[in-house]
Amino acid sequence: MLRNLFPAVMLVSANCGNTVLNLREGTMHITLCKSAIAVWIAFAFIISSPATASEKGSKHKPGHKDEQESEHAAPDIQLSPQTQACIACHSKVTPGIVSDWLSSRHAKITPEDALKKPSLERRISTASPPENMRGFAVGCFECHSLNPDKHQDNFQHMGYSINVVVSPNDCNACHPTEVQQYSGSKKANAYKNIMMNPVYHTLVNTIDGMKKIEDGKVVLQDASYSTLHETCLGCHGTKVEVKGMKKIFTGSAWGEISVPDLTNWPSQGVGRENPDGSIGACTACHPRHSFSIEVARKPYTCAQCHLDPDVPAFNVYKESKHGGIYDSNENKWNFSNVPWVIGKDIKSPTCATCHNSLLVSPEGNVIAERTHDFGSRLWVRIFGLIYSHPQPKSGDTTIIKNKDGLPLPTTFGGELAADFLIDKAEQDNRFDKMRNVCKGCHSTDWVNGHFKKFDNTIKETDEMTASATKLMAEAWDKGIEDKTNPFDEQIEKLWIKQWLFYCNSIRYASAMTGAPDYAAFKNGWWELSDNLQKMRDMIDLKELTKEKRIKLKMDK
Amino acid sequence: MLRNLFPAVMLVSANCGNTVLNLREGTMHITLCKSAIAVWIAFAFIISSPATASEKGSKHKPGHKDEQESEHAAPDIQLSPQTQACIACHSKVTPGIVSDWLSSRHAKITPEDALKKPSLERRISTASPPENMRGFAVGCFECHSLNPDKHQDNFQHMGYSINVVVSPNDCNACHPTEVQQYSGSKKANAYKNIMMNPVYHTLVNTIDGMKKIEDGKVVLQDASYSTLHETCLGCHGTKVEVKGMKKIFTGSAWGEISVPDLTNWPSQGVGRENPDGSIGACTACHPRHSFSIEVARKPYTCAQCHLDPDVPAFNVYKESKHGGIYDSNENKWNFSNVPWVIGKDIKSPTCATCHNSLLVSPEGNVIAERTHDFGSRLWVRIFGLIYSHPQPKSGDTTIIKNKDGLPLPTTFGGELAADFLIDKAEQDNRFDKMRNVCKGCHSTDWVNGHFKKFDNTIKETDEMTASATKLMAEAWDKGIEDKTNPFDEQIEKLWIKQWLFYCNSIRYASAMTGAPDYAAFKNGWWELSDNLQKMRDMIDLKELTKEKRIKLKMDK
Amino acid sequence: MLRNLFPAVMLVSANCGNTVLNLREGTMHITLCKSAIAVWIAFAFIISSPATASEKGSKHKPGHKDEQESEHAAPDIQLSPQTQACIACHSKVTPGIVSDWLSSRHAKITPEDALKKPSLERRISTASPPENMRGFAVGCFECHSLNPDKHQDNFQHMGYSINVVVSPNDCNACHPTEVQQYSGSKKANAYKNIMMNPVYHTLVNTIDGMKKIEDGKVVLQDASYSTLHETCLGCHGTKVEVKGMKKIFTGSAWGEISVPDLTNWPSQGVGRENPDGSIGACTACHPRHSFSIEVARKPYTCAQCHLDPDVPAFNVYKESKHGGIYDSNENKWNFSNVPWVIGKDIKSPTCATCHNSLLVSPEGNVIAERTHDFGSRLWVRIFGLIYSHPQPKSGDTTIIKNKDGLPLPTTFGGELAADFLIDKAEQDNRFDKMRNVCKGCHSTDWVNGHFKKFDNTIKETDEMTASATKLMAEAWDKGIEDKTNPFDEQIEKLWIKQWLFYCNSIRYASAMTGAPDYAAFKNGWWELSDNLQKMRDMIDLKELTKEKRIKLKMDK
Repeated sequence: MLRNLFPAVMLVSANCGNTVLNLREGTMHITLCKSAIAVWIAFAFIISSPATASEKGSKHKPGHKDEQESEHAAPDIQLSPQTQACIACHSKVTPGIVSDWLSSRHAKITPEDALKKPSLERRISTASPPENMRGFAVGCFECHSLNPDKHQDNFQHMGYSINVVVSPNDCNACHPTEVQQYSGSKKANAYKNIMMNPVYHTLVNTIDGMKKIEDGKVVLQDASYSTLHETCLGCHGTKVEVKGMKKIFTGSAWGEISVPDLTNWPSQGVGRENPDGSIGACTACHPRHSFSIEVARKPYTCAQCHLDPDVPAFNVYKESKHGGIYDSNENKWNFSNVPWVIGKDIKSPTCATCHNSLLVSPEGNVIAERTHDFGSRLWVRIFGLIYSHPQPKSGDTTIIKNKDGLPLPTTFGGELAADFLIDKAEQDNRFDKMRNVCKGCHSTDWVNGHFKKFDNTIKETDEMTASATKLMAEAWDKGIEDKTNPFDEQIEKLWIKQWLFYCNSIRYASAMTGAPDYAAFKNGWWELSDNLQKMRDMIDLKELTKEKRIKLKMDK
Repeated sequence: MLRNLFPAVMLVSANCGNTVLNLREGTMHITLCKSAIAVWIAFAFIISSPATASEKGSKHKPGHKDEQESEHAAPDIQLSPQTQACIACHSKVTPGIVSDWLSSRHAKITPEDALKKPSLERRISTASPPENMRGFAVGCFECHSLNPDKHQDNFQHMGYSINVVVSPNDCNACHPTEVQQYSGSKKANAYKNIMMNPVYHTLVNTIDGMKKIEDGKVVLQDASYSTLHETCLGCHGTKVEVKGMKKIFTGSAWGEISVPDLTNWPSQGVGRENPDGSIGACTACHPRHSFSIEVARKPYTCAQCHLDPDVPAFNVYKESKHGGIYDSNENKWNFSNVPWVIGKDIKSPTCATCHNSLLVSPEGNVIAERTHDFGSRLWVRIFGLIYSHPQPKSGDTTIIKNKDGLPLPTTFGGELAADFLIDKAEQDNRFDKMRNVCKGCHSTDWVNGHFKKFDNTIKETDEMTASATKLMAEAWDKGIEDKTNPFDEQIEKLWIKQWLFYCNSIRYASAMTGAPDYAAFKNGWWELSDNLQKMRDMIDLKELTKEKRIKLKMDK
Repeated sequence: MLRNLFPAVMLVSANCGNTVLNLREGTMHITLCKSAIAVWIAFAFIISSPATASEKGSKHKPGHKDEQESEHAAPDIQLSPQTQACIACHSKVTPGIVSDWLSSRHAKITPEDALKKPSLERRISTASPPENMRGFAVGCFECHSLNPDKHQDNFQHMGYSINVVVSPNDCNACHPTEVQQYSGSKKANAYKNIMMNPVYHTLVNTIDGMKKIEDGKVVLQDASYSTLHETCLGCHGTKVEVKGMKKIFTGSAWGEISVPDLTNWPSQGVGRENPDGSIGACTACHPRHSFSIEVARKPYTCAQCHLDPDVPAFNVYKESKHGGIYDSNENKWNFSNVPWVIGKDIKSPTCATCHNSLLVSPEGNVIAERTHDFGSRLWVRIFGLIYSHPQPKSGDTTIIKNKDGLPLPTTFGGELAADFLIDKAEQDNRFDKMRNVCKGCHSTDWVNGHFKKFDNTIKETDEMTASATKLMAEAWDKGIEDKTNPFDEQIEKLWIKQWLFYCNSIRYASAMTGAPDYAAFKNGWWELSDNLQKMRDMIDLKELTKEKRIKLKMDK
C-alpha cells in the first residue's frame, strides 16, 4: 500500500521564503536562512504527486490511502512554505516523522475543504479555523507554531519560531469541541489526580520508591521522578517544563543545535501538563504524526494503559465475544469512516465504539454522539477506590472529600461522598446513552439481562472488599501492621489487591459481558476468595512474630 | 469490503402477508399486523441487490463476500415473506443483527442449492431439509420458528409465532450429524457436569460464593446464580427457563412489548440447557448471527474459554511455533473453504484444524473427517481432575464413580475409574486420528518424537500432583486444615493449584509442542516446584498457630 | 493469495535419474529407485506454472507471491532432478512441507539470479555458491544433501544420500556472513551457556527436576532430559546426536523405513547442537520450510522465547506505543522488502527493526547494517544475572569468572567481571548504532531523554536486587535456609524472582519505552516492593519454625 510513496528522488535546495519547485527538472530549491549555505538534499516525499511551485506553497497529491476513506478523489493540496522548509530537512534528519505525517489525514485535506463536508462527516469542529492555515495542508509548521506567547518551549529553529510540544490548546484551533470535552475529563486531570491527592500519592510513592535494607528493615525512600515517569506517569502524564536552553549534538549534518531543555520528556500520558499551561496529550491516542482515527479506534491504543491487574479492560475484551469477533474480522472492517456505521463499518465494538465515537445506523440515524469526555457514557465508576461509586461530577477528583475528611469518593466503610458524585438522574441519562449503543445489535431484553447481572456483581464485589477491610482493621487494631502508611506492609498489600486487582477485574469482566475464565480463575473470584484466607492466616502468623519481637525487646 | 453493502436507502412499509417490493419506485410496502398502523421505515439492507417482489418471497443477491468463498457466482436468493417482515422492523430496531445475518452463508444460499454441492463441500448434513424452507435463504423466521411445541419460550410477536432461543434441536433440521455428534460430547454436557457433580459443585461454590467476616472468621455463603453465570457458567452454559411473560420498554417506536421472561439470559455457554429441553449452544462458537465458519476456525473463539490458568490452550498456542506462524500469516489464508485444504488454505494449524475440521490434502485426499464431538481425536484427558486419564466414554461425566465412591475419573491416589474411561484400543484409534493430522506437515519420526516427550510429561506431572497430595494428606491428618470442604483453606488452595493450574499448563504446553517459557517459568515447573515448598512451609507455620489456638482455648 | 496454487492435479511417476515431465499430457514420469515399482501419484504442486521437462531439471514459474516482493517479474526456475524426486513423493506423504517450500523465496530464485541483485537488495552473502546449485531453485535436495561427511545423520533414503537435520554449516553455502555472525552470538551458544555453566545448570535442574515427598520432606531428583527439552531447552536448543538407525512405520504406502535414530528430536532451539558438530538452528526464526523473512521480522517469532516473567520483551512490546501502532497497521506494511525502508515499508519498529535488520531511509541511506549477532547493537545486558552488566565479549559465557570464582558476569555484591565484558568504547559504539535506529523517527533530544530514564532505571533496579540480596544473606547467615543449593527454598525463590522476574521486567519496559502498567503493577515495582516485605516476613516466620525444629530435636 505504501510502496508507491517514494518512487523517485528529487533534489531540493532551501531558500528562506523563496521556494522553487521545478517539476520538469524534478528539483525544488529552498535555501535555509540561518545556515547561510545552500543545502541540497534528496527530497523523497512530495515527489510521488504532480506538484507545481508557487510563492505561497507547493501542491502535493496524496498518492496512497493509509486510511480507508470514502472519498473517491482528493484535490491537490497546498503546503505552506514554512512546512516545506521543515520537510526539506526533516525528510533527511527524521524521515520517519515526515513519512508518518504524509500518511495522515492532515496531509490530505485543508481546513477549508474540511469545512465543506456534511456535518456528520466533519472531523473539524470549529467553523472558523485560523485564516492563515485555511488553504494549506495541516503540516509541521501549522501545528508547531501556534500560540507562541503561551509556549515556554518556543524557540528559534532554523529561522522559524517553533514550539517543541503541540498541546491540546493548539489543537483547539480546529478541534475546539473535542478539546473542551477532553479538558473536563478525568483523563486530562490524570496527572493532578494522582500527584496532588495525598492518599493516591502515598500509594504511588510506596510502590515506586526505592527500598534500602537498614538493620534488617525495609526502609522506603521517595520515588524518583524518572521511575514515576516510566510507571504511573507513563499513562497519567508528566509535568513538562522548560529549564532553559541546551545544546545537543544531533549527529547529522547539523551538528550541535540549541533546543529548549524540557523536564520529564518525552511524555505522552493522557494528563500531561504542558509548557503552555494546558493539560492533556492528544498523541496519547492519536499517535505521532499520523494522528490516526483508525489507531485511536482500535483497541491496542486503549490497551497501552487499560490493562491488568488494576484496569484489565483490554484483557477482558480479548477474552470476550466482542473481542473474539473483532480479532477474527478486523481486517475486513473500516476504522476510518466518519460517521462510524454500526453493522456496516464494523460488526463488533471496540473500546471507542462504546465509549466515545459518533455512531450511526446503516440508515444514517445517530445512535451515539461523539464525545472526548470518556466518562460521559458511564454512570458508575467500577474502578473501585476502594468501592465502586457513581462517576465523579468533575474530572478533577482532588476536590472530593468524604465523611472521614479524605479525598476519596467513599469512606473505607463504603459511604459515598455524594456531593461530589453525579446524582440518580444523571446516572440514568448516561446509562441510557450506553444502553442505546448496545441496542444497535442486541434486543432490549438481552441488554437488560446483561446489566442486571452487572448490578449484582457490583454489589457482591463491594461486599468482598468490605470483608477484606474488616480483616485489615483487625490487623491494624491488634498492632500487627501499622496504618500510618496504609500501603506498605504485607497484609496491607493483600488488602489493596482485593479492591484494586480482583474486584476491579471482576467488574470489568461483568461490564463487558466477557472473560468468564478471567473472572473465575485468573484475577477474579478464585483470587478474591484465596486472598481473604491469606489475610486471615497472615494475621494469625504475624501475631506470633509480633509477640516474639515484643519479647525480644523486653529481654534486652 | 463491506462498503457497498448499504449504498442507498429505500422506503419500506409493512403489511401482514402482503409484501410489495417495488424496485422502480425503490419502495417496499409491508404493514405490521399488530400495530395497525402503516410504518414507513428506511430499509437499507436488501437494497444493494437487484430484487424483485413476489408473493412467496423477494430475491436478494449477495453483493459482497464476507467469507472467502470459492464460488464465482451466487444466484438470486429468495427470502421467505416472514423473514422479510422480520427484517423490515429489525433493520431499524436492531440493525446490527440484520447486518450480521446478511454477511452469513445462511443469507447466501438456500438449503436446496446447498444439497447440490459435492459431498466434501457440503455444509448441510441432512438429505431432506424441511420442505417449506428449501427454497428460501435461511433467514430469521426459518430458525426462530421451528418446533414451537417444544419451546417454552415460544410467543406471539408482531403476528408471528417466534422462539427467542434457537437451540441445537432447531439447527438439527439441516445439520443433524453435527448436532448428534455435539450432543454426546463433554461440551454439550458442560452444565450438568459442573452443577450436578457434587465434588465439582463444591469447588465452584467455594470459589464463587460470597465470604463474610464473622467473629474474625471467613464464612462462606452459597454462590449466587448471577455470579456463577458470569464465571463458570459463562463457559459451561446456564439453565434457561421461562418464568412467564413480561413487559419491556424497548425505547423504540414500538414502546412496551410482551416477551417471555427467561431465567439466566443472555447465555451462550457450550452446555446451555435450553427452554425446549435440548442442551448446547451452537452460537458459542458460531456467533450470532453470522454463524461464521471462519470465526469458529480462528483460535480467538476457543480462546474465550480455553485460557490460563486452568486450561491454557490459547496461551500455549500463542507462544508456539504454530501460533507464531498463524499470527504472521493469518490474513493470507482461507478460513472459509470447505473442505479445508492443508498447505493450500492454511499452512499452520488452528484449534479447529487439529480437533474438529474436515481436512484434505491438496490432492483432495481426506486427512481427517469433520467432527463436532471435540474429544473424538483425543485419547488422553490432560485436564487433570486431579490426574490425567483416558478420555471418559460418555460426555456425561456425572455417571463416573471411582473406587472411593466419588464421581471422579481417578482416586486421589491416582487409580483410574477404568469402567468409565475409554480402553486401549479406542485410545489407539484416536491417537492415530490425531497423528494423521500432524503427519500432513511433519515426518513420522518427528511426530513420534513429539509424542514420546508428551508421554513422559504426563507421567512426571502426575507424579508432581501425587507429591502435593501427600503433603495435603499430612495437613489434613495433623488437623492443620479441615478436609470437610477440601477446597476452602489456604494449603488446600495450593494443592488445587498444583493439579488445576500448573500440571495442566505443562501438559498443554507439551501437547501443543509449544510455550517452553510458559512450561518453565510462567505457569509451569517453576510454580510446580515452588508450590511444594510453599505447602511444606505453610504446614509447618500453620502448625504453630494451631498449637497457639489450642493453648488459647485451654487458657480460657 | 494461495488459492491458485493447486489449480489442477497431474499424474506423476518417478524413475531414478529419468524424469519426464510431459506438459501436453500433464504428466511427469519418475521412477523411485529403491522401491522398484513405478508409483503414480497425484502431483499437485508444480502444476500451477508452465514448466518444461529437461534432463537437468524442470522449470516452474512462481504463480503467486507469498511474500510482498518488489520485483515485478520472476523467471522460470529450474528444479534439480533430485529435488523433483523428493517432491514427487513428499507432495503426497507430507504435503504441508512441500507447500511451505513452494511459498518460500528459495523456490522462486536461483543462487545465480540472486547474485545479480544490487548489493543492498541481496539476501545471499556468498559470492560463490556451490557450482552444482547455482542454476536450480534451492530445493529439498540442495539443503538436505550438503556436507554429508560431517553429518552423523546422513542416510540412504530412496536412493539418495540425505541429512535429516539442515544445520547452519549447511546454510553457510550461500549465507556465510549470517552464519559467521550468528555463530559468535549468545544465541548460538545458548545450549552450552545453560548446560555447561554449573550455576545456571543448578538453577535449571532445581526448577525442572521431579520432587518426591520423603518423610514429609521435598526431595529433589535430577531433571529428565525430556522435561528440559520442553522447558529451558525448548528455547536454548537440545543436543541432537545419532544413536544408530531405526525402523519406523510411516503409515503411508511406504510402510516401514529406516531412518537415523536421533536424540532429543524434534528440536528448534536457537543453540541446538547439531549432528554435524555445528551449533544453532536457523529454523528457530525462519521456520520450516518457508524460511520466511516476513515471519522472522514479525514479533511473534521472537515472542516464542522472549516472554514474561523472565524476559518479557514481547509482553512489553505489546503494551508499548510501538506495539500498538504495529498491531493497528501491520497488514498495511511490507515485511519482506530488502533493504527494509523505514517510514515506507514500516512505520513502527518490530524486534528485528531495532536488533538486526538492514535498514535504509526512503532516500536509500543506510541507517543500520544487517546483523545476525543479536547483541551487536546492545551495550548493556539488562537480563540481570543477577545484576545488569555490559554485554559479554564472547557469546560463550561459560568462560566468564567473577571475583568469587563463579562463572557469572558480576559477583553477588554487584562487582563486574570486567575482563570478560565489553569496554566503554565498545559500549559507546553499540549505543550509537541503536540510537541511530531510534533517530530515524525521533529527534535527538527525544532519544536522549529516553535513554536518560533508562540509565536511572538500570541503577535503581540493581539497587533493589542488592536489597533483596542483603535479606537473602541474613536468611543464609541465620541458617533459616541453606545456601548449598541457593535456588531450592522458599526465601531463595523470592530472591530469584526479584532479579529474574521483576527487575528484568522493569528494565525491558524501560528499554522499549513502553508498558508503564506492566512496570508499575503487573511484574514491576509493585512486585519488587511487595517481594522485599515477603522476604522480611518469611525470614521472621521461618525463624520460628527453625527454633521449633531445633527444640523438637533436643526433646528427642
